[in-house]
Amino acid sequence: MNVKYVSRIIAYTLIVSAVFMAMPLCIALYDGQPGNVLSYLFSMMISLICGFVTLWFTRNHSTTMYAQEGFAATGLSWMIISIFGALPFTLSGEIPSYIDALFEIVSGFTTTGSSILTDIEALSRCHLYWRSFSHWLGGMGMLVFLLAVIPQAKKNDGVGIYLMRAESPGPSVGKFTPHLRHTALILYSLYILLTILCIIFLLVGGMPVFDSLCIAFGTAGTGGFGILNDSMASYSPYLQSVVTVFMFLFGINFNLYFLLLLGQFKAVFKNEELKAYLLIFGSSIILITLNIFKSVGSVGEALHHAAFQVSSIMTTTGFATVDFELWPAFSKGILFMLMFVGACAGSTGGGLKVARILLLGKSIKRNTSNALHPRRVSIVRMDGRIVDDQIMSSTTAYLAIYCLLMLLSFMIISIDNYSLGTNISAVVACFNNIGPGFEMVGATGNFSHFSNLSKLVLTADMLLGRLEIFPLLTLITPDLWSRKR
Amino acid sequence: MNVKYVSRIIAYTLIVSAVFMAMPLCIALYDGQPGNVLSYLFSMMISLICGFVTLWFTRNHSTTMYAQEGFAATGLSWMIISIFGALPFTLSGEIPSYIDALFEIVSGFTTTGSSILTDIEALSRCHLYWRSFSHWLGGMGMLVFLLAVIPQAKKNDGVGIYLMRAESPGPSVGKFTPHLRHTALILYSLYILLTILCIIFLLVGGMPVFDSLCIAFGTAGTGGFGILNDSMASYSPYLQSVVTVFMFLFGINFNLYFLLLLGQFKAVFKNEELKAYLLIFGSSIILITLNIFKSVGSVGEALHHAAFQVSSIMTTTGFATVDFELWPAFSKGILFMLMFVGACAGSTGGGLKVARILLLGKSIKRNTSNALHPRRVSIVRMDGRIVDDQIMSSTTAYLAIYCLLMLLSFMIISIDNYSLGTNISAVVACFNNIGPGFEMVGATGNFSHFSNLSKLVLTADMLLGRLEIFPLLTLITPDLWSRKR
Repeated sequence: MNVKYVSRIIAYTLIVSAVFMAMPLCIALYDGQPGNVLSYLFSMMISLICGFVTLWFTRNHSTTMYAQEGFAATGLSWMIISIFGALPFTLSGEIPSYIDALFEIVSGFTTTGSSILTDIEALSRCHLYWRSFSHWLGGMGMLVFLLAVIPQAKKNDGVGIYLMRAESPGPSVGKFTPHLRHTALILYSLYILLTILCIIFLLVGGMPVFDSLCIAFGTAGTGGFGILNDSMASYSPYLQSVVTVFMFLFGINFNLYFLLLLGQFKAVFKNEELKAYLLIFGSSIILITLNIFKSVGSVGEALHHAAFQVSSIMTTTGFATVDFELWPAFSKGILFMLMFVGACAGSTGGGLKVARILLLGKSIKRNTSNALHPRRVSIVRMDGRIVDDQIMSSTTAYLAIYCLLMLLSFMIISIDNYSLGTNISAVVACFNNIGPGFEMVGATGNFSHFSNLSKLVLTADMLLGRLEIFPLLTLITPDLWSRKR
Repeated sequence: MNVKYVSRIIAYTLIVSAVFMAMPLCIALYDGQPGNVLSYLFSMMISLICGFVTLWFTRNHSTTMYAQEGFAATGLSWMIISIFGALPFTLSGEIPSYIDALFEIVSGFTTTGSSILTDIEALSRCHLYWRSFSHWLGGMGMLVFLLAVIPQAKKNDGVGIYLMRAESPGPSVGKFTPHLRHTALILYSLYILLTILCIIFLLVGGMPVFDSLCIAFGTAGTGGFGILNDSMASYSPYLQSVVTVFMFLFGINFNLYFLLLLGQFKAVFKNEELKAYLLIFGSSIILITLNIFKSVGSVGEALHHAAFQVSSIMTTTGFATVDFELWPAFSKGILFMLMFVGACAGSTGGGLKVARILLLGKSIKRNTSNALHPRRVSIVRMDGRIVDDQIMSSTTAYLAIYCLLMLLSFMIISIDNYSLGTNISAVVACFNNIGPGFEMVGATGNFSHFSNLSKLVLTADMLLGRLEIFPLLTLITPDLWSRKR
């Protein structure tokens, strides 16, 4: 492995994340909190020093890069920025336990939104901003951001594609412009544009500026950290509806927005994943509305909350307008299933991704057909194009390791002796980057009661879910470290 | 599809199952219960009439048979014998609801062992015998039995292999003698031999003859229907240990016993599945023993109960010596994981099967390696032989549809509004043919409180789990019914 080059990429990521700490630093200054100012200042300095020292020591590097390096750089970058990003919380003393702080910031970067805080409103505004902003940064990806802003990325497309593949969610990644840097730039421009739109709609509804920024970051990254203890429940129905719509929009593959801009409407409306996404979305809302409208009172209100909650869980955001823990088990069952489905590939959402569910469905269909007609050759198509056997195979293998890791995590956190429902939904909520689960970790619950071991396991699950396992899994293969090129 | 030939196979199965009703009929006669005598007599007569009438109407049949016919015959046979097999329970009035009776007998044939009975000891002995015997019959398979006893099967090996593939558990089935009939005969001989051994060991421990028969049937088929309300708790530690050992033995691939008889010890001890089975088995027992010995008091007793429960759950039998619902969540977590693993392929146990877990692990390994080295060709081996890509693909597709069907079932039974833990473990316990789950369906619970809809869904899950999905799934493909050959 090209250790020097991988180290440089990590160093760049660290420097970028340090630069973004300037904003919470300013908020702490504005709010006149010297303790918080110092903790952000120190975290920034140490990140920048580590970053620049690494760049200095690795100045004689080759740019040879393969899939290995892409995975390692991505996996390690995410771990390192989390380790440094958690510092301000603990240094300021507002989250005394470093493991808790790590859980919180990984939950932020991975756009999970699970929290160990029992009283969110007690946190200073600078920390609230940093948590929510980490959603925004993690949503589209740190390394994709790097590709967009670092000029030298343009020169070496071969470097970028491996990083982008390793960081972007979904079974396959394509560049839609000849230069990867353009692709990354376009992605981030669309992302910023949609985020600004969301902020404007929230401001129009009378939400304060600070709240609008934080909620928009949480929505854009499909993260779900709120700044109030009741998540979104105390905001007006208009604001809740704005968030419903934008969560839905951020759950769509960003490539489709690019196609829309190019005027290729036909390709967008024929997109199989989008159709499936709409179908699952719509039918879940209808089923839950029918199931809850009696207890809620009016169909309109039931529809409002059903749409919000489906949008929130399916896109793996995790905001809540009501305590859905009190809903009938059937509605909870639908939400539980949506946790696995997740949003579209190439969006900021987590979960298995609708595209992967479609591929799994097609794989099932092909294998049923193969069982009936052993001699017939069957081909799998998606959006009219033939799907490579390699992609089919890695999709199904992904499911296998996804199930395996979730079961293992479940077993370890069982040591804490909470209920089956709590343990299962905690793992599912973290691994799929949702945020809240059910029972003790439900909409009004939090993750504070788990032991440190369980918190570390769930922290790992969040990273595994966001990076889709392989970048982290390859870090532990001896293959990666033993051989030299 | 060759409808006539498929109908004939179903008719044969029905006749065989009717013949086996003679035994509970005799018990009812011996116990002097005219109501039960009549209900078994009527069920036998109607089964025999339907069977022979079908044989008569299909006497001009071709013997052309492909995978389609194998799947259809297997799926339909199991459904039909269950429909007729449930009759005596309802006709005698001891299980008044026919849906309950169907649940009970499907639970029997599929070797699940889940029960809707709240008081097992209130059931007449003839019914207790019929429930337990259905485990024995379903364990090795009705159609494998047919292949062994019907002389004409010898003439047409092509017919049998499709039936055997459709009915036998595990990712692949091989005949180990040139003639399939011999294979089936050997399998059943080994099965009978081990069952008799089990009965003898139980009798030696002072268990009454009737109990020994029923418990041996439940052990051999890895079913788990007991005849006492506390399952195995009130039997002596010796009897419990006998059952522990035999459950373990019946969870091993029967092909290995055949190899042992042939003296091929090396092949047996090099078998990867057996090694994995032993490893999972042993480590689970150790972990649970360490976890429970404080609360149990002595290490010996903890080991005894841990071994029994691991053997019971991993082989998907479902007997219980203690209420493991009261164990710490970590031990329950291990048992929950073992529910998915299941026993070895080619045994009487259910679950995903150890061989499939191994193949999934190898698939994960291959795909991780492919991700790191996209150009390297990697081959999967099992027991030294190269595994066909087709088997790899169908194994991973199996996992996909397995997860999908369990999630769908979970969603439907959620309508009953029980807890997440109850709903999840009920589906997992039925689909993997275990028997008891956790919370309301735990070791001391039962399935009586579910609605009829949920009972039907769980009944379908038991059949899907036992037949490994495809034989039933293909029944609903239009492909099977629309085309004529």
